Amino acid sequence: MKTTILINCPDQSGIISSVTGFIHRKGGNIIYIDQHVDKEAGVFFMRLESDFEKNIPAVQNLKQQFQEELAQSYQMKWSLHLGSTKPKMALFVSKYNHCLYDLLSRFNSGELEVDIPFILSNHSDLEYVAKQFDIPYYHIPVTKDTKVEAENRQLALLKEYNIDFIVLARYMQIITKKIIDHFPNKIINIHHSFLPAFAGAKPYHAAFERGVKIIGATSHYVTEELDAGPIIEQDVTTVTHAHSIKDFITKGRDLEKIVLSRAVKLHIRRKTMVYNNKTVIFS
Amino acid sequence: MKTTILINCPDQSGIISSVTGFIHRKGGNIIYIDQHVDKEAGVFFMRLESDFEKNIPAVQNLKQQFQEELAQSYQMKWSLHLGSTKPKMALFVSKYNHCLYDLLSRFNSGELEVDIPFILSNHSDLEYVAKQFDIPYYHIPVTKDTKVEAENRQLALLKEYNIDFIVLARYMQIITKKIIDHFPNKIINIHHSFLPAFAGAKPYHAAFERGVKIIGATSHYVTEELDAGPIIEQDVTTVTHAHSIKDFITKGRDLEKIVLSRAVKLHIRRKTMVYNNKTVIFS
Amino acid sequence: MKTTILINCPDQSGIISSVTGFIHRKGGNIIYIDQHVDKEAGVFFMRLESDFEKNIPAVQNLKQQFQEELAQSYQMKWSLHLGSTKPKMALFVSKYNHCLYDLLSRFNSGELEVDIPFILSNHSDLEYVAKQFDIPYYHIPVTKDTKVEAENRQLALLKEYNIDFIVLARYMQIITKKIIDHFPNKIINIHHSFLPAFAGAKPYHAAFERGVKIIGATSHYVTEELDAGPIIEQDVTTVTHAHSIKDFITKGRDLEKIVLSRAVKLHIRRKTMVYNNKTVIFS
Amino acid sequence: MKTTILINCPDQSGIISSVTGFIHRKGGNIIYIDQHVDKEAGVFFMRLESDFEKNIPAVQNLKQQFQEELAQSYQMKWSLHLGSTKPKMALFVSKYNHCLYDLLSRFNSGELEVDIPFILSNHSDLEYVAKQFDIPYYHIPVTKDTKVEAENRQLALLKEYNIDFIVLARYMQIITKKIIDHFPNKIINIHHSFLPAFAGAKPYHAAFERGVKIIGATSHYVTEELDAGPIIEQDVTTVTHAHSIKDFITKGRDLEKIVLSRAVKLHIRRKTMVYNNKTVIFS
Repeated sequence: MKTTILINCPDQSGIISSVTGFIHRKGGNIIYIDQHVDKEAGVFFMRLESDFEKNIPAVQNLKQQFQEELAQSYQMKWSLHLGSTKPKMALFVSKYNHCLYDLLSRFNSGELEVDIPFILSNHSDLEYVAKQFDIPYYHIPVTKDTKVEAENRQLALLKEYNIDFIVLARYMQIITKKIIDHFPNKIINIHHSFLPAFAGAKPYHAAFERGVKIIGATSHYVTEELDAGPIIEQDVTTVTHAHSIKDFITKGRDLEKIVLSRAVKLHIRRKTMVYNNKTVIFS
Repeated sequence: MKTTILINCPDQSGIISSVTGFIHRKGGNIIYIDQHVDKEAGVFFMRLESDFEKNIPAVQNLKQQFQEELAQSYQMKWSLHLGSTKPKMALFVSKYNHCLYDLLSRFNSGELEVDIPFILSNHSDLEYVAKQFDIPYYHIPVTKDTKVEAENRQLALLKEYNIDFIVLARYMQIITKKIIDHFPNKIINIHHSFLPAFAGAKPYHAAFERGVKIIGATSHYVTEELDAGPIIEQDVTTVTHAHSIKDFITKGRDLEKIVLSRAVKLHIRRKTMVYNNKTVIFS
Repeated sequence: MKTTILINCPDQSGIISSVTGFIHRKGGNIIYIDQHVDKEAGVFFMRLESDFEKNIPAVQNLKQQFQEELAQSYQMKWSLHLGSTKPKMALFVSKYNHCLYDLLSRFNSGELEVDIPFILSNHSDLEYVAKQFDIPYYHIPVTKDTKVEAENRQLALLKEYNIDFIVLARYMQIITKKIIDHFPNKIINIHHSFLPAFAGAKPYHAAFERGVKIIGATSHYVTEELDAGPIIEQDVTTVTHAHSIKDFITKGRDLEKIVLSRAVKLHIRRKTMVYNNKTVIFS
Repeated sequence: MKTTILINCPDQSGIISSVTGFIHRKGGNIIYIDQHVDKEAGVFFMRLESDFEKNIPAVQNLKQQFQEELAQSYQMKWSLHLGSTKPKMALFVSKYNHCLYDLLSRFNSGELEVDIPFILSNHSDLEYVAKQFDIPYYHIPVTKDTKVEAENRQLALLKEYNIDFIVLARYMQIITKKIIDHFPNKIINIHHSFLPAFAGAKPYHAAFERGVKIIGATSHYVTEELDAGPIIEQDVTTVTHAHSIKDFITKGRDLEKIVLSRAVKLHIRRKTMVYNNKTVIFS
């Protein structure tokens, strides 16, 4: 039974040896440790992959022992994940198909260990892609007047399908507190700029206007402040004076696909932790 | 006689054939053309390298003919540069030595075709580097009270040495209109962020605070608005949660050196033109 | 009528002004010139985009005049392409779907200005992708014994559909002289290494074995010598000791997609010329 | 007392908890762990940074206990390094000054925690640089006839100054077994290509000839087989058909500097381990 444990707690001496000792005593073999100390905040972070010879019923036992023997005294916030369970990912899209195609073809190739119960959109444009890949497609239009009702329908779907996290694959609507509160640090957005430069609408136009020589894309967890959530992954590509805004958009599409898919993979593999509006990305 | 001609003018049909025809008629062989049309602004840009068999006295003739036969009717802004003249570059520094060492060792290796008549600083810290490379070093302290006087001394030096352009190799003082007006698009600064993100003071600290995954450096011509001039060159490097601010600074130093030296080379080779607060960078 | 002219000829003085003068006399407006001189070989290369106000019947005239007035005296090899004609691209695949999905989703988004008359494979595995995108799929198995017959069937299809160029989107069969002779510099392959390192089979395994810190992908025109044709495009990504061969393969897939699609776009836009087993890539 | 422990041993369950438990029992606080398992070879690697409140005399004790309590049973190869000791680095150069200037200016800025007792060269060309930085310079010419004698003089100097490791900063002589045997995995070379492509002499010329679109540099430990030692660091930069061999060389110089300095820093911080002609690079 492969397990992944994520921990954060106030930094102090002895945590690593306590945790590794615990795993060893319980019959686990540690496959990989990665840890980090945020010295300014005085916080310790750790991710452990271990292999237990135990069967699944014993997991509850293990969790209780971890809580009692370790977590309480170190004031740990922690979670334990079994390697055998695939998270359920909902895809939100609008009209652009490039990130959607990219994620679905990776899913199809076995590159993403998730279930994708549905694709949701405020438009019907991409229903044909959902059909190509045989995934349910929900068209929930959003207008000023129907925003509240639309969010209720979204929440109902997310609940019905037991969704674990949401990927905004170029979903062109602002996600409100209502949804965010149900999925804290579980909504991944792709923004088509090198944040914090060019937050908000039309970043390629703003980048063109400024005459930058490099454009970027940023994947981040969605928080209430627009385009200001914890950054998971960024990448860039060079541009020149000879590129038009249309060229920026075309070059940017490749960035968006790569950066979003990397962030999704990190999330699926539970390699991200959020603290102080930043991410720790485990190796 | 190798010459470089830089042109910009309102875009219209026939410019390229007119200019290339002119060069041909005057006995020049065109070695390289690069051109660009800014379609939104309707402006045409061109850079031509040509080889003339003429001797230097004939250059004045050529310039006059170019003005009369071509430039007037096309409303060209243009300049003609002889390959044989080395521009004179002044280096302004404060306390950091990395960009200074980098530029001087490139100069020493013959990589930069310039003269460096002097190094100027508001501190005496880097005088030892100037001595290592046997270049005059002027220490002109700058305080609130002495700013005006210091600028007068700077201008006097720039004039005395016939300086063509200034490189701010991490010079930690704001350049005012007084100096800029004498060197429009001729003062190159290196800013230690991926502009327009993190303009102003302490960009590495701001980048660390925001939790970015990539840091950058930007070289630009200095204008009155701080860190908002035309961008010449940018580059980036990846960082992670594990990097401290000190690590950002160390990694950034390598970026600053590379980005500044590339901008300086482009300027020396007359491969930059400025329009609408943007640069055209010729290949 | 937008036209693209590609030229190469022995280098000499006056070519640029002759060609631009010709275009101008024939009523064309030059939109973009890019040229290159291979000084060692003494060869001149040029690509011109022009806009003519003429109608299509006049093209034959223009071609004849170009040949008589210019091409003969300069010994030019040249071609003229009308912007209105889309090239026909055949896709050859085997079992991997990532490059196929990537190209088809770009095609679907209007990013590739081609027709794709068919997909051909030596296996039936990817027929479902062809169906998703509603493109004919020909399954032509290849064994030692049937290689000759298979090539005849391939050639018949290529002829029947008037194919202009072939893209090997991870087609795992060697292309022989028989096919190459019909498509010189018109077959684009993606090799999953940074050529010339790791030519031949299993490059990711070889890269892993050598302990490299960077892996690459290379797109090139197919010539008789395996993996030794003119390189169109290359890109790389970093790897570490912690990556397994499987990780190399997964990371490499993203490279292969990007590098192949860039090469295909360059070819479609007629931005490539081949000389001395190298490419000139126009901007 | 800050210490770094490097370990490799046959992989088995329980190593991490044993080692972390040992450190904890001896009063050490683990600051950072990084580990790696080469699954094919079945070998475990670990690097531990710890903080001990002990004074230096106790280190011998600690080493003995580590050997007896842990290393023997796990068949570990291991080393323990005190943070307070700076390694001694010898610089070997020939005629190119760029890597030398780069390393010395980093050294001057406090970026490299080493001592540099001397610079050695087979030419006298760079003596002026050594003088600029006030470091002893030994000129030991090497010819076919004097090779053996020259090596003896080199070995004598390396011994006299208690040199820990050697950096070949573009030293254009082959290092023979005689020297290598005294400095196994302790001689760092910079090769100006993306190895294994273009090993041997004139790699930029070979890269130009092949028409590659990317050039690289590789830093590796020197072994008896030329340019085939364990790779520490690689990086690349793009080139085009428009770049001459001279451009390759100029662009490559920046790569060489960056790649060599990164490798030197990794070595100084004891972040490298060699196994099966590959490196493990700790984070």
